[in-house]
Amino acid sequence: MTPTRWLAAALSALAVACQAAPEPADTSLAGTDSTSNGSPVAGFEFTTDEAFDAATVPAYGGDHPDVYADIERNLDAHIGNLQRWTRQRSVSAQDDGIDQMAEMVRSDLAGMGFAEAELVPTDGHPGVWGYYDAGADKTLLVYMMYDVQPVNPEDWRSPPFEAHLVDTELGTVLMARGATNQKGPERAFLNAVSSILETTGTLPVNLMVAAEGEEEIGSVHYPQILDAYEDRLGEADGVLFPMNNQDPTGALQMSLGVKGIIYMELEAAGSERGGPTRSEIHGSYKAIVDAPAWRLVQALSTLTSEDGNTIRVPGYYDGIRPPTEEEQRLINGILPTWDDSAQQAILGVERWIAGIEGREAILRYLYEPTLNIDGMWSGYSGPGAKTILPHVATAKVDSRLPYGLSPEEQRRKIEDYLVEQGFPDVVVRSMEGYPAAQTSVENPLVQAAIGVFNKYGHTPTVMPRLAGSAPFYQFTERLGLPLVFTGLGHGAGAHAPNEYMVIRPKEGSGIAGLAEVEKGYVDLLYAIAGG
Amino acid sequence: MTPTRWLAAALSALAVACQAAPEPADTSLAGTDSTSNGSPVAGFEFTTDEAFDAATVPAYGGDHPDVYADIERNLDAHIGNLQRWTRQRSVSAQDDGIDQMAEMVRSDLAGMGFAEAELVPTDGHPGVWGYYDAGADKTLLVYMMYDVQPVNPEDWRSPPFEAHLVDTELGTVLMARGATNQKGPERAFLNAVSSILETTGTLPVNLMVAAEGEEEIGSVHYPQILDAYEDRLGEADGVLFPMNNQDPTGALQMSLGVKGIIYMELEAAGSERGGPTRSEIHGSYKAIVDAPAWRLVQALSTLTSEDGNTIRVPGYYDGIRPPTEEEQRLINGILPTWDDSAQQAILGVERWIAGIEGREAILRYLYEPTLNIDGMWSGYSGPGAKTILPHVATAKVDSRLPYGLSPEEQRRKIEDYLVEQGFPDVVVRSMEGYPAAQTSVENPLVQAAIGVFNKYGHTPTVMPRLAGSAPFYQFTERLGLPLVFTGLGHGAGAHAPNEYMVIRPKEGSGIAGLAEVEKGYVDLLYAIAGG
Repeated sequence: MTPTRWLAAALSALAVACQAAPEPADTSLAGTDSTSNGSPVAGFEFTTDEAFDAATVPAYGGDHPDVYADIERNLDAHIGNLQRWTRQRSVSAQDDGIDQMAEMVRSDLAGMGFAEAELVPTDGHPGVWGYYDAGADKTLLVYMMYDVQPVNPEDWRSPPFEAHLVDTELGTVLMARGATNQKGPERAFLNAVSSILETTGTLPVNLMVAAEGEEEIGSVHYPQILDAYEDRLGEADGVLFPMNNQDPTGALQMSLGVKGIIYMELEAAGSERGGPTRSEIHGSYKAIVDAPAWRLVQALSTLTSEDGNTIRVPGYYDGIRPPTEEEQRLINGILPTWDDSAQQAILGVERWIAGIEGREAILRYLYEPTLNIDGMWSGYSGPGAKTILPHVATAKVDSRLPYGLSPEEQRRKIEDYLVEQGFPDVVVRSMEGYPAAQTSVENPLVQAAIGVFNKYGHTPTVMPRLAGSAPFYQFTERLGLPLVFTGLGHGAGAHAPNEYMVIRPKEGSGIAGLAEVEKGYVDLLYAIAGG
Repeated sequence: MTPTRWLAAALSALAVACQAAPEPADTSLAGTDSTSNGSPVAGFEFTTDEAFDAATVPAYGGDHPDVYADIERNLDAHIGNLQRWTRQRSVSAQDDGIDQMAEMVRSDLAGMGFAEAELVPTDGHPGVWGYYDAGADKTLLVYMMYDVQPVNPEDWRSPPFEAHLVDTELGTVLMARGATNQKGPERAFLNAVSSILETTGTLPVNLMVAAEGEEEIGSVHYPQILDAYEDRLGEADGVLFPMNNQDPTGALQMSLGVKGIIYMELEAAGSERGGPTRSEIHGSYKAIVDAPAWRLVQALSTLTSEDGNTIRVPGYYDGIRPPTEEEQRLINGILPTWDDSAQQAILGVERWIAGIEGREAILRYLYEPTLNIDGMWSGYSGPGAKTILPHVATAKVDSRLPYGLSPEEQRRKIEDYLVEQGFPDVVVRSMEGYPAAQTSVENPLVQAAIGVFNKYGHTPTVMPRLAGSAPFYQFTERLGLPLVFTGLGHGAGAHAPNEYMVIRPKEGSGIAGLAEVEKGYVDLLYAIAGG
């Protein structure tokens, strides 16, 4: 693994695994600084020097040559399935093609022999539910998203909804919106399921599919989909989110959790307390008129230290669950290949905060709650000078929450603190929030995935979690299930032009082509079943 | 005068008058708080209870019936001149029609008999210089701007460069870009000059015209125009900037000065000190990457008190020249009709800062230096949630400077303070700056203007100054000349759609029509000449 692979994988992947999220192991460290504003994360001490090495997980030993042969024989049709899915527009933000795509997912499941294959009405875009009863001991819940990001077609070298096969330096790729995020790997998984069914007439595990069409707009109604099948979901043993997890060099990184998040808008506006209430006014009135922009600046400034890196909200760091011994082993395992400079070069950052490096950087990256200004705006931002006193000023602020922190409590701490500091006039508008999700590396689902990767020579690096966020708590916390978000294969361009998934990689690239990606999913299903 | 007229006049007018700006009369009050951060303005004490009343200035007694008759006889042609000027595009920001407009001004002056009428090259748009030697004792310098603001034609009820006469509730108006800002009153003034010349063959005063084509983009090169005629300008006795100074009710307010201004952009960006240097990065990196947006917020927050109304920069209030006795009389004169609530209603403001009212509000409005956020921006400001760590954050900040404060010194105080507070990484980009301008009400040029207004029954309210800014220091400070920026007439819509100047007002409206506006300028020239 090259140092730069770290980041590429961390940026492009989302990954969690089969067993309940670990209990907080030792919260005493988190409490050491409970009354001050300092973060305890840098002071988290390790109780083990052992390092996890994914190569020690036994490679999956099963072999399913008839199924592999079916995949090879039908590869053109399998590619056609990916093209069919990505040619169908399904831009959730623009309600473009959503119903047609939901029906395509439903009918594909029905056509493959899923006894249950139905649309799930929600207050937003419909979900899709599928169930294949293989009469097996184990049941796998497969999370899917069938929606995609909007496109600017003029930025694409190949039209985003024509799904052409394009030759690139990595080999032949499918270029289309949704090619890697997330229709490509999802349909590859269903191709694998289809080949097993064609070859053996059944599946090694029972499959539940719970797909949504609103992932790109915040998954607001996904809980309604789970609600509808709540009594059934208890039968599941774990959750899979199919994902192209290799970077362009073929390196594979898995992560076992995500941070939670709260996302807010803070806004100051003119009111009966003062300031312009209707619109901007001439800037010369600042002499006698209150300014919402100053109020926002002053309110925001109370939230952090002068360097912006320590959160001043009392108790904000209380309750962070320090790294378990198992997570310490994972961190010890990645430390030898962790290269601060290489990651900084990719990001265009000269140094981490306070000049930290190595294990301290990893710890803060993965365990520190953040308070981040995503955007702020007020008044005039064009060229030259315009002299106005704006009537409103707004900031978008998010806070990433490591395992152990509650979105509701953290939001309340911020709101209470602003009032206490004398800013009851600054409104905190809550936009979304959910807690972290975590799965143990010891969980059989994770072990099965690593075993399959090892079989194909793609031994993964395993991070305890991503610093990013996803609402996987619905599986890990609500349902108490382990989750893996991973798979062989490489794609890029999610949320960007020229999104692609590699179909036939250049020889020696180390990237799994579509056939190998599908064989990996075949093996994973058998590995989960224990065979 | 109705209470609301205060504001309409203060907002729409710019006004200064014949005699050097008054010397600082008593700076001891300004020094009482020189080491703290508090403003001394609220504590300025008055040494006189006398109140200025413009009605006590003798009405201009001259009469020029032959000239007035020439105006009436040629009114259609005079209107045609305003239309010709406003049909000629001259959008300085877009370099649209500038050269043609400059040539139109030049050739009009030449055609009227100005011995000197020439374009003045600058590093920007050309100026126009004109000189009419009447062999008179007195010489008046006339400042003109021939450029206009950009337009959005679709927002106009009559095309902005067709200059139609349009019937409105105020009467027949000329609707065009530049109708009131500033071609209308300027060409009305030249119509008046033309009628004097047609009737008498000469002028009562010598006239210098120094016009620029960059007023709407900051007058950056205007000093170059003055440079070119520096030795000549010493002959001038005062400066006139023709202006429609009546509000829609006919009320007329003059102001005798303007505040200065400094305009800056404060910017924090990723650098070798930390933070993303190339572009935004994923918001989850806040855990280990410095945030320019927080740095800007923290730096800005040091500049003011928590309510945003007291400037914390040491010494920022030092040197404000308190109201002279003459200015105290002006303030005492306007106080009886000053109506805080009415002005607040127009602005959409519920209260002034700290609940101040009356004389304290007037004092702070006119004598307080401001620090105002005109705009700020960073990162994402669209709908919904986007989680990024922006690489740059910027604020536009202006500071209005009352008489006595130097733009260079105030800027240096801000820059020094930011460094001292630990923000050397926050860049202060200076955009423009100039000092205040002030003319005395006792100056003969001001007295002449008031006398003419009284003759026509439009006794003005006289404010010591505007709270707004204009680079009139070039006349009052550099050349040591008094300046009046005033005139009869009403127009509105400067910098907005449907800009107009009233040509033939509805009867009883109290607004001077074009003929009366021109007669007022005729009388003003004779009054200045002392006849």
